[in-house]
Amino acid sequence: MTTIKDIADRLGVSSGTVSKGLNGADDISEALRDKILETAVEMGYTKKGLHRQDTRKLCIFIENMDYYLEDDFGYDIILGFRQAAFKESWDVEVIPVSHDFQIKRPYDPFMLGRNISGSLLIGFELNDPWMKELSTTKVPTILFDNYIRDNPMCGSVGSDSDEGIGLAIDHLAYLGHRKIAFLDGPQGSMISENRMNAYRHNMEKHDFAYSNRFIAYEPYSMEAASKHVSRFLDVGVTAIICGNDTLAFGAIEECKRLGYSVPDDVSIIGFDDIPGCDKCDPPLTSVKQDRIQLGKCCYYVLYALVNGVSLSRNLMRTTLTVRSSTAKAKPRR
Amino acid sequence: MTTIKDIADRLGVSSGTVSKGLNGADDISEALRDKILETAVEMGYTKKGLHRQDTRKLCIFIENMDYYLEDDFGYDIILGFRQAAFKESWDVEVIPVSHDFQIKRPYDPFMLGRNISGSLLIGFELNDPWMKELSTTKVPTILFDNYIRDNPMCGSVGSDSDEGIGLAIDHLAYLGHRKIAFLDGPQGSMISENRMNAYRHNMEKHDFAYSNRFIAYEPYSMEAASKHVSRFLDVGVTAIICGNDTLAFGAIEECKRLGYSVPDDVSIIGFDDIPGCDKCDPPLTSVKQDRIQLGKCCYYVLYALVNGVSLSRNLMRTTLTVRSSTAKAKPRR
Repeated sequence: MTTIKDIADRLGVSSGTVSKGLNGADDISEALRDKILETAVEMGYTKKGLHRQDTRKLCIFIENMDYYLEDDFGYDIILGFRQAAFKESWDVEVIPVSHDFQIKRPYDPFMLGRNISGSLLIGFELNDPWMKELSTTKVPTILFDNYIRDNPMCGSVGSDSDEGIGLAIDHLAYLGHRKIAFLDGPQGSMISENRMNAYRHNMEKHDFAYSNRFIAYEPYSMEAASKHVSRFLDVGVTAIICGNDTLAFGAIEECKRLGYSVPDDVSIIGFDDIPGCDKCDPPLTSVKQDRIQLGKCCYYVLYALVNGVSLSRNLMRTTLTVRSSTAKAKPRR
Repeated sequence: MTTIKDIADRLGVSSGTVSKGLNGADDISEALRDKILETAVEMGYTKKGLHRQDTRKLCIFIENMDYYLEDDFGYDIILGFRQAAFKESWDVEVIPVSHDFQIKRPYDPFMLGRNISGSLLIGFELNDPWMKELSTTKVPTILFDNYIRDNPMCGSVGSDSDEGIGLAIDHLAYLGHRKIAFLDGPQGSMISENRMNAYRHNMEKHDFAYSNRFIAYEPYSMEAASKHVSRFLDVGVTAIICGNDTLAFGAIEECKRLGYSVPDDVSIIGFDDIPGCDKCDPPLTSVKQDRIQLGKCCYYVLYALVNGVSLSRNLMRTTLTVRSSTAKAKPRR
C-alpha cells in the first residue's frame, strides 16, 4: 500500500508537505498541491478509513440537469440522497460540472484533494471526459443509468425497466389493447436497449404479436414523435408506450394533429412520471420512477461501495401512475 | 397506521396483553401469543424504528445448503453477512428451516414475534411454503438468486451473469476458441435464463456463431454432463462453459471417458468457483462469485430495505479464476 512517505520520496519533498497537499492546506502552491494529488493517485494512494473520521463527506456531481427548483428533474434525486446520507452523518456537497471543468480537473485527484469518500454522478454522457477515468478510478462512484464494466469501484443504479414496461403492458392488456407500439429513446443507449428488451419480453409474455413496424428509436424530443405516430396508427396500433414523458407529450400532440382523440382512439403511456405529466391534456399515464427513492438507492449502494462491497448493477422498483391518457381499447380497422 | 390499541380492541384484550404477545413475554399462553401476532400481521402492524433500538436483530434463514464447515457453500455467505452487519451493531441469528417448519410457522408472524427487522433467505426453492407469503410480506427480506415481483419489501441479490459469462468468453476468445458450447443449469430457473441470455449476448458481441446444437439445459449434477459432451464435440466445439462447477466436473470426467484431454483437446470453464475447483484434475477455471462479498451485498441491500428504500434487483461483481482446465484452442475436424 502506498504511504505518504512513498509519495514524498518520489517527489523529493517532505512527508509534511505531502500531507499538506493531500489535506488541502493553503500554505503550499496550488501547482505543488496538484502535483502531489496527481502523484498520489498515480501511485494508488487511498485514504483508508476516511469515512470513519469526523469529516464524512460525499458529493453529487451534476451535469446537463436542472436541480434548483422543486419541479426540476434533479431536485428530488439530490434531496433523497441527502436525506438518506444525513441520517448517517454524512456531509453532501453538490457540485455542478461542465465538460471544461472535467478536462481541467481529473476525477481522482479532485476527489482525493477534497477528502470526499465517494460520489454520485448524474446527468453525465458517455463522451464526458470523466467517463473514461471511471474505468480505473479508485474512488467509490455511483452512476445513474450508466454502467462501467470491469471496475468494482463503480456501481450503477437505475429503475427496473422490465418491471416498469411490464406494468404498462399489463395495464393496457387489462384495458383490452393488443396492438401496442413502443417509441423508445435514442438507439444505442443502455437505457433504450433495456427498455426495448423489456417491451419485447413483456409483449411475448402476453402473447401479443409485434414487428419492427411497432417500434422506433428516437432522441428524447417532442418533435421526434411526429415521425412515427401515423405509421403506428396505419398498422392498427391502439396504444403507444414511450421511452420517456417528453416523447409521450409529442405523441399526444401528433395524435391530436392527425385528428385522433387520446385516449378514446389511442392510449398513450410515458416513462419517468415527471412533474409535467399531470398538467398536460389529457394528463399522462406514466411509469413512475420515484426520484426521491432513486436518490436514496444511490446513497445505499454508494455506502456499500465505500465499505468495500462491490454492488454492481442495481435496480429500484417502479410503479404505474394511471391518469387519463389511457382508456379501453376501441378496435380500429 | 395500526396501533397496539387497535389490535387490543379487535381481540377484546388489554393493550398490555398485546404488548406482551408482540414482545414474546412468556406469561401469556402460546395460543394467545400466536393469535396476537397473526392479528397484528393481518392488520398491517409494523414495529416502526425497531432497528434503532437497543435490540437490532436481523436473521438468515437457510435451507438445502450446508454452512457449518469452511468449505460449505453457505459458510462464507453467512460470514460475509455477519461481518458487514456486525460493523453496524446488528445481531444476526442463523435459523435453518425445513419445509414443515415453514408450514407450521407463517413468515410474518414468526418475524414479528422475534423482533427481527429483516432477513436473508438462502437456499429456498420456488415451491417452499414461505415463498408464497413473500409476495405480501411487510418484513424487509432479501432473496439470493430469486426475485419477487410487485412487493417492494423484497430485494434480490445475485451475481452478474452477463459479466461472468462475458469474462469466460473473453478468456476463451483470447485463447483462440471460437466454437464455444454452453451447458446451462435447469431450464426455467431465473438463473439459468439469465446465464443463457448472457451466453447469447456475449457470443454475439464476439461475432461467434452458435446454434441450438451448442447449448443444453440440465439439472446441476455430474451425470447430466454425460448426455451432451459428445454431441458438442461432434459439432466441433473446442470449449464448454458450464452453468455451475458440478456440471463442469461432470464435463471433465466425460471428456476423459471419451478419450479427450482437458485442456489440450477441450477447455472447460465452471461457474461459482466452489472450494473443490482447485482440487479436481485438472484444476477448474471458473467464474468466481465471491461468497463473502455476496453475503455483504445481501446485508447492504437489506439495510436499505430496513430503511424503507426499495432496491429491487441487485447484482454483484464476478471475476474469473483461471486454472488449468483452459488452454489454447487446437482446431479439430
